[in-house]
Amino acid sequence: MGDLNLMKSLSIEGQTKILLLVLDGLGGLPATPDGATELEAADTPNLDALAARSICGMSTAVAPGLTPGSGPGHLALFGYDPLEYEIGRGVLEALGIGFDLRRQDLAARGNFCTIDPDTGLITDRRAGRIPTEVGARLCEKLRQISLPGMETFVEPVKEYRFVLVLRGEGLEDGLTETDPQQVGKAPLPVEPLRPEAAPTAKLLNGWMAEARKLLADESPANGCNLRGIAKDPGLPGMVEIYKLRCGAIATYPMYRGVAKLAGMDVLETGETIESEVETLAKHWADYDFFFFHVKKTDSRGEDGDFDAKAKVIEHVDEVLPDMLALEPDVIIISGDHSTPAVWKAHSWHELPVLLWSRYIRPDGVSQFGERPCMAGGLGHIHHVDLLPLAVANAGRLAKYGA
Amino acid sequence: MGDLNLMKSLSIEGQTKILLLVLDGLGGLPATPDGATELEAADTPNLDALAARSICGMSTAVAPGLTPGSGPGHLALFGYDPLEYEIGRGVLEALGIGFDLRRQDLAARGNFCTIDPDTGLITDRRAGRIPTEVGARLCEKLRQISLPGMETFVEPVKEYRFVLVLRGEGLEDGLTETDPQQVGKAPLPVEPLRPEAAPTAKLLNGWMAEARKLLADESPANGCNLRGIAKDPGLPGMVEIYKLRCGAIATYPMYRGVAKLAGMDVLETGETIESEVETLAKHWADYDFFFFHVKKTDSRGEDGDFDAKAKVIEHVDEVLPDMLALEPDVIIISGDHSTPAVWKAHSWHELPVLLWSRYIRPDGVSQFGERPCMAGGLGHIHHVDLLPLAVANAGRLAKYGA
Repeated sequence: MGDLNLMKSLSIEGQTKILLLVLDGLGGLPATPDGATELEAADTPNLDALAARSICGMSTAVAPGLTPGSGPGHLALFGYDPLEYEIGRGVLEALGIGFDLRRQDLAARGNFCTIDPDTGLITDRRAGRIPTEVGARLCEKLRQISLPGMETFVEPVKEYRFVLVLRGEGLEDGLTETDPQQVGKAPLPVEPLRPEAAPTAKLLNGWMAEARKLLADESPANGCNLRGIAKDPGLPGMVEIYKLRCGAIATYPMYRGVAKLAGMDVLETGETIESEVETLAKHWADYDFFFFHVKKTDSRGEDGDFDAKAKVIEHVDEVLPDMLALEPDVIIISGDHSTPAVWKAHSWHELPVLLWSRYIRPDGVSQFGERPCMAGGLGHIHHVDLLPLAVANAGRLAKYGA
Repeated sequence: MGDLNLMKSLSIEGQTKILLLVLDGLGGLPATPDGATELEAADTPNLDALAARSICGMSTAVAPGLTPGSGPGHLALFGYDPLEYEIGRGVLEALGIGFDLRRQDLAARGNFCTIDPDTGLITDRRAGRIPTEVGARLCEKLRQISLPGMETFVEPVKEYRFVLVLRGEGLEDGLTETDPQQVGKAPLPVEPLRPEAAPTAKLLNGWMAEARKLLADESPANGCNLRGIAKDPGLPGMVEIYKLRCGAIATYPMYRGVAKLAGMDVLETGETIESEVETLAKHWADYDFFFFHVKKTDSRGEDGDFDAKAKVIEHVDEVLPDMLALEPDVIIISGDHSTPAVWKAHSWHELPVLLWSRYIRPDGVSQFGERPCMAGGLGHIHHVDLLPLAVANAGRLAKYGA
């Protein structure tokens, strides 16, 4: 239900530990009508054994039919109603690269693109996925642009992606994107969605015009677009709401960003799942709640590679005993959204979810998979309710009412 | 969840087609404690085969325990929260007969009735179900009534039913009905539920007094009642919300009316299910979304005729292959409410629902019936969420958030 004030009034301190294991894009679809999903096809003896001792179910990330982006999907897992708390992509990207974003800064995700010099129309929205080094050099160039009364920051992310941050007085969000979302069209002007945002739109359109000039002689990245132009929404922090010291382990910027926004400490970790497990073990004593993020399930789903997605799940299964050896008091395993390999993108489908603690009612589900979880004891629930359930199972929520 | 602004912001155009097949009053009850429901007892090889390839579940039309009228039940199927969007019966009836209702018109459903001339009390609320021709003649008579500053329209529907429409300045809805809902009572005065509606109530009471005089010498229809006095609520149209060209196929005025209110084109069709299927095939290329309504399941349920209701379901099963041959991308089959033959009226019971697309997770349900659907992979959902799910399965909803 996502009533954070209620959670704040009921949460109590404790010694118990919660592990939230998120396999990004976990939910799948059968490759053939009668077949198994990626999770069902994967050989997962450890996940299955844990499912047999857990209560399972299916969970809607945001709302029926809605396909969540990574931001809303994770916000819901962290107990925030994503229809109430919206985060712009620019903010997520900025936080994800460790940029010290301040509350009044305006952040945009930038994409280098290729523009036909004669027509001005976009021919490649990702500029041939230029190498990260090239992107970094171009960002250097764009730092020359100065706007009246503003500090500007242009920071490379990966490949064709960058972040633009404006810092100064009177910045307002509520702005449209410049990316027309298809080739054969020109970049769009930034438009204010609220009258107060008009001066900020003007600033950004000025920046875009300068950027166009500076990039004109580059190839293939002779243009750029701005997306998800937004300010930090100022979420109430999980530490304050739940009295949990929260640590986040994630390899990819966006997930580190959303964790930071929710008030978690983002822990330094390596690129592999093994390295993430090491980080978990190293910091086990320091936190009450761990968000542990596995990215590659989503990546392989987006690639449309059913078998490779199943392999990533098997990889997680292999390291699961090392996580269990730390003896968390509560474990939740799910995903932020489905990414079926046959759909090759995020999707609206429910997520399988597993909840273990010493205080659950086992439900007879003995395999962690979409079809078995449909018959699970949690029934069909919503992501926003998972964290309150975890906190309750951790003995950290006081009674409501006398 | 029924957030139409969100749906409007996420919906995208496409080439896919959605078929919503509504068996009015589909949900049933066992005639004996251990027996089958009407749907379960019916021999439905085609529905069962489709269920085996679909994801099934049970759906609440409006809210637990609530028995929906036809308006709310259908609004929910069309994605409108019926507790937020209310439509008066007068409006539905007016639209259903093809009356060109304007936004500021006030419409009432009229019923001719029999009144004891000595006591003034109603002895038959439907005037012995007078033939439609008699009703038409009486409407002609009532057109003599003129109200100050108002245009009035009196249009026959079927048998004892008619529609009264007032057109003019300052009409307000929020008015009580005159039908006391039982015999042995006199027609009630129209009362305003809001102070602004008082002048409109006075106008209608004046009309009622004149009607009483004009009908006094008739038999058996020597009186009338006004029900569901209301204005067009001005629903946001499905075409705008979902970017779907919507066609409605229904034989009965009320369902054509509610479809029109939701912004659908109402297609000309005959009285039989076969004729409706022909209409579907004829217009298949013209629309993205089809609402296909079967009335007789409800009628036979209201009659209390269990076997006849099962026969209507079998009739639908027979024509189902002709609908599937059109190759819709998404199919939803359900009802607007339950009408169990043993209850002989609309009821509050959940509806079995079947959703097929290439992107569903089959759930092991291999018979379309209430008990099998209770174990279905959709779980227990709400009608208002069915259309968003259909639109998502049609690939016509963009990702929410980054």
